[in-house]
Amino acid sequence: MDDTLISGPECGLENVDRVVHGIVKGKADAMLGFQGLLSRVGIDEPRLGRIANVTASTTLSHYTHKQLVGSVEASVKAGFDGVAAHINLSSDGEPDMLRILGQVQRECEVYQMPLLVITYPRKETVNGVENYLDLKNNNPAEYLRLLRHGVRLAADLGADVIKTQYTGDPETFKKVAAVSYDVPVLIAGGPRVPEEQALQVASDAVSAGARGVCFGRQVHLSDDIPGFLRRLRHAMADRCVSRRPVALVTAESGRH
Amino acid sequence: MDDTLISGPECGLENVDRVVHGIVKGKADAMLGFQGLLSRVGIDEPRLGRIANVTASTTLSHYTHKQLVGSVEASVKAGFDGVAAHINLSSDGEPDMLRILGQVQRECEVYQMPLLVITYPRKETVNGVENYLDLKNNNPAEYLRLLRHGVRLAADLGADVIKTQYTGDPETFKKVAAVSYDVPVLIAGGPRVPEEQALQVASDAVSAGARGVCFGRQVHLSDDIPGFLRRLRHAMADRCVSRRPVALVTAESGRH
Amino acid sequence: MDDTLISGPECGLENVDRVVHGIVKGKADAMLGFQGLLSRVGIDEPRLGRIANVTASTTLSHYTHKQLVGSVEASVKAGFDGVAAHINLSSDGEPDMLRILGQVQRECEVYQMPLLVITYPRKETVNGVENYLDLKNNNPAEYLRLLRHGVRLAADLGADVIKTQYTGDPETFKKVAAVSYDVPVLIAGGPRVPEEQALQVASDAVSAGARGVCFGRQVHLSDDIPGFLRRLRHAMADRCVSRRPVALVTAESGRH
Amino acid sequence: MDDTLISGPECGLENVDRVVHGIVKGKADAMLGFQGLLSRVGIDEPRLGRIANVTASTTLSHYTHKQLVGSVEASVKAGFDGVAAHINLSSDGEPDMLRILGQVQRECEVYQMPLLVITYPRKETVNGVENYLDLKNNNPAEYLRLLRHGVRLAADLGADVIKTQYTGDPETFKKVAAVSYDVPVLIAGGPRVPEEQALQVASDAVSAGARGVCFGRQVHLSDDIPGFLRRLRHAMADRCVSRRPVALVTAESGRH
Amino acid sequence: MDDTLISGPECGLENVDRVVHGIVKGKADAMLGFQGLLSRVGIDEPRLGRIANVTASTTLSHYTHKQLVGSVEASVKAGFDGVAAHINLSSDGEPDMLRILGQVQRECEVYQMPLLVITYPRKETVNGVENYLDLKNNNPAEYLRLLRHGVRLAADLGADVIKTQYTGDPETFKKVAAVSYDVPVLIAGGPRVPEEQALQVASDAVSAGARGVCFGRQVHLSDDIPGFLRRLRHAMADRCVSRRPVALVTAESGRH
Repeated sequence: MDDTLISGPECGLENVDRVVHGIVKGKADAMLGFQGLLSRVGIDEPRLGRIANVTASTTLSHYTHKQLVGSVEASVKAGFDGVAAHINLSSDGEPDMLRILGQVQRECEVYQMPLLVITYPRKETVNGVENYLDLKNNNPAEYLRLLRHGVRLAADLGADVIKTQYTGDPETFKKVAAVSYDVPVLIAGGPRVPEEQALQVASDAVSAGARGVCFGRQVHLSDDIPGFLRRLRHAMADRCVSRRPVALVTAESGRH
Repeated sequence: MDDTLISGPECGLENVDRVVHGIVKGKADAMLGFQGLLSRVGIDEPRLGRIANVTASTTLSHYTHKQLVGSVEASVKAGFDGVAAHINLSSDGEPDMLRILGQVQRECEVYQMPLLVITYPRKETVNGVENYLDLKNNNPAEYLRLLRHGVRLAADLGADVIKTQYTGDPETFKKVAAVSYDVPVLIAGGPRVPEEQALQVASDAVSAGARGVCFGRQVHLSDDIPGFLRRLRHAMADRCVSRRPVALVTAESGRH
Repeated sequence: MDDTLISGPECGLENVDRVVHGIVKGKADAMLGFQGLLSRVGIDEPRLGRIANVTASTTLSHYTHKQLVGSVEASVKAGFDGVAAHINLSSDGEPDMLRILGQVQRECEVYQMPLLVITYPRKETVNGVENYLDLKNNNPAEYLRLLRHGVRLAADLGADVIKTQYTGDPETFKKVAAVSYDVPVLIAGGPRVPEEQALQVASDAVSAGARGVCFGRQVHLSDDIPGFLRRLRHAMADRCVSRRPVALVTAESGRH
Repeated sequence: MDDTLISGPECGLENVDRVVHGIVKGKADAMLGFQGLLSRVGIDEPRLGRIANVTASTTLSHYTHKQLVGSVEASVKAGFDGVAAHINLSSDGEPDMLRILGQVQRECEVYQMPLLVITYPRKETVNGVENYLDLKNNNPAEYLRLLRHGVRLAADLGADVIKTQYTGDPETFKKVAAVSYDVPVLIAGGPRVPEEQALQVASDAVSAGARGVCFGRQVHLSDDIPGFLRRLRHAMADRCVSRRPVALVTAESGRH
Repeated sequence: MDDTLISGPECGLENVDRVVHGIVKGKADAMLGFQGLLSRVGIDEPRLGRIANVTASTTLSHYTHKQLVGSVEASVKAGFDGVAAHINLSSDGEPDMLRILGQVQRECEVYQMPLLVITYPRKETVNGVENYLDLKNNNPAEYLRLLRHGVRLAADLGADVIKTQYTGDPETFKKVAAVSYDVPVLIAGGPRVPEEQALQVASDAVSAGARGVCFGRQVHLSDDIPGFLRRLRHAMADRCVSRRPVALVTAESGRH
């Protein structure tokens, strides 16, 4: 649930209480959001993990250059179960994000705090933000290479869990999941799609080696969040190759 | 009262003693200013809160990029009741202000110091400072989206109180106040308007969910500061949806 | 005596011993210089205050962007009586100088060390350094506004003494001295003028509310430093509106 | 084994387990990689040294400007036997890498941790990355000078081992090895070549004063890693002028 | 002996042992070099001082912007007798070097470590490095002014010894030596000249107030280092106006 900082409280996250209630009722494994939200929203469900995103940017300025806005120490003190840091590969701010990621990882080591690394290929150009969607369609091998690069980089720098984008089909995603040194990989949801399609993606991804999903808008925009989360678990359980599929919800409105 | 650093001691703040006297007499809830002023101006009214702005810039250079000029620790030692940090969304300096805001918030957490976040959409362009006033008039939905974005960002990053701009009418401002996770939202005053209009704005804002106002020039430029503050309280009390409306005075001359 | 770092040991400061001897003999209140000089030059006059300038730049590169070259802690340990920090309003380096000034002020607070803030409107342009002398002549109201802005900023950020430029006449300088929250304001000397004119400026300034002067070249270039300082005191004593006029000597050759 | 962070898990390092198994079986002296990999990959061979690369960049953005992503303290705590830092001479980021190298070296001194410095002439130009291969062919004397410069710089800054590129023949490489103040110099492998050629290069290099090799792709892409490593040791042992030739494997896929 | 980091191990410093042996035998007062060299080269002559240069750059990138690569604390721990920091006046990196110099000086104060400041007028232009040699020939008064500026700046910032360039004749150099507040000034050697000329320069410089010389290439490139150093001492002793002339050798190959 950390999208609202990034592009504003649109996309179903205006009413956070409704979303959080649904997430708890749907028994998601964990919620990912910024420290302010997760400290304030009353969550009386100890089984729901809480992960603090300690990096941020907005769509309004230098969107692909995430800054350090939190700390592992503060997250531990506030009672979080893990922290997340985001790195955009190929961005002009990549060197700075590498430095930040290293710093967060070392602090995680000191506090024995699990670290989720969010890694996307993304950069700013004179024409706006480049998410490599054209590349995904026109040169899927090169797009696959970008995702693999990001996943391996995250594993190399000490991630405990990695979130990345889905390639679009299980055959190619196997090649992404294969390069993480057994670090669990979760797939992002992206723009909302019909529920059946989202369930199919989740099912395919876990069959290809993903450990689970980390969805945002797919959840927030659902009219029946608990039901969707149950169906999501069911869809993943059927085909998961990992021990137990994970459903993590990004409590941030808008796009990451 | 922190505008004088920003654009000089114009706009009624040349004679600070008169303004402070009026603020105390008019029973404002708190004064917001820079550490130098609030440490020097003799205030023998314990009920008047004092909030130190720890970020600054001037209209003379990189106006929309606020720098860290104070610290929470120093503010605590100097006897302040809270600190404020300012972030301009969409500014080229936004990433740096995100970093600073995160740092101030963590220090506030350590010292249990309340944090007021001032959030405006504002950037510098080759043509000067862009305050999105044209957008406000020509595309109010997009302007509303900017204000909501700023308010949610402040809440996400751990604000205890948020100051932002007024949309212009209570119907739209409801949509701003709704996205703060119950963090109190105060509205800024902007350029001076006739007193009746200022009272109407305050009244409308609190009816729409604002917790109160954080006015500067509306107060400093008044010939009868205590009277204006009393009438302001009265206007807000009539229609406030919150527990108790707040009147906070920005003791900084000029524009923020 | 901190000009030699800035533009070289010209303007009467080649022979520092002569100048220091004259300053001591003329009973100046304090000397302002860099740490290296003031630590080395033997001064056996306990009544002469020593103020360490902890910020520096040279005329050879980024002249209007002062860097932090000292620290309050080191100045205290070296036995100084105060520190000085310089900020050029409107310079491209202004945000960084705001940050530095805030840092120095907080350290002064910790060590209970008096802080002199030197504030000038000054920036670099493609045509060289802009000191706003044309503005002073052609639009004195706007120049006045710049000086007031700088003085109030310094007071807002916690200065104990402020050094700024003279407006040129006592009527306008009153409006500068009025905005400092009673923080003492000293005027700079600028390029050398005939002694009578310098004495008149000092006399006018204190009659307008300045607490005294902080002269450099007017002193160093004098053939009779002790005599000039005595005449300076006399000229200020006659018309001073403050408790006791202050004569402080900038022991830095060249321009600040 | 630190190339995967840099250009992705291609070049034989997709299946890290196979490579690590081969390295252990082939009795390499040490493995060089990023902290994440080396902490995760189970290595039950105490005689295989592990060296953590604490600097990183990727081929996707500012490739020749390595950032600090780890620390000596964290590497010591994680049980590594040494750390590595990479500096690209002539890169626009060279000054920053000099600063980082100095910082890492001082931390190594405190923890008595051996420091491997990787030094290549490399920079980014508008046409892409300049590795000076044209220079190597067209002006070998100047290329030699660049390598010598890098090796001496690493020795001057306190390297305990230096990795650099091979000149191409033993006569010229003698002039590289001669300038390291007896700090052991290892040669990099570069793009994969036929095994016989790689063995010849290793043999020539140690005959010219190199202490050994630090190969990546030559190892990862081999079908018979243990065999290749044994043949490599044998080839070096025959002609080595140092005490004992060293075979170190870079466990990073792609190009450094 | 710190030139090899800067432009490579050319100019007589390939074989450091020969140079060090000659320096010891010739009874130089001290050697200046980088920490790596001076820690490794075995020197069993306690009377030879060792000075660690804690700033560095190379001729390959941003040559005139020296970075901090060492620390005073580390130099003290490694047994050095002093540290050196280099500042290039007029360089675009001058503000950063001022900041670094201030930092090194304060650390020297804490550890009571002597500080040698190397100060040259030097900057990068689109046409390459500007050493002001044309200015020296065509406008010697302005060149003199630059040298005086640098020497006074070093003294202002707390240097214990200053190294700068020679003006070319004793008459003008007197004006350089005169502005250092009695801080000893050493002259640099520059490109190698015939021995008789180097001895004349040294003799002239000390007669003009220099405390001695800090030569690099004049020493390294000599076929008879001990003999040259003895003749150098002799030439200086004859005309020195200081207590005892100093011969310091820069153990860095190439140009500073």
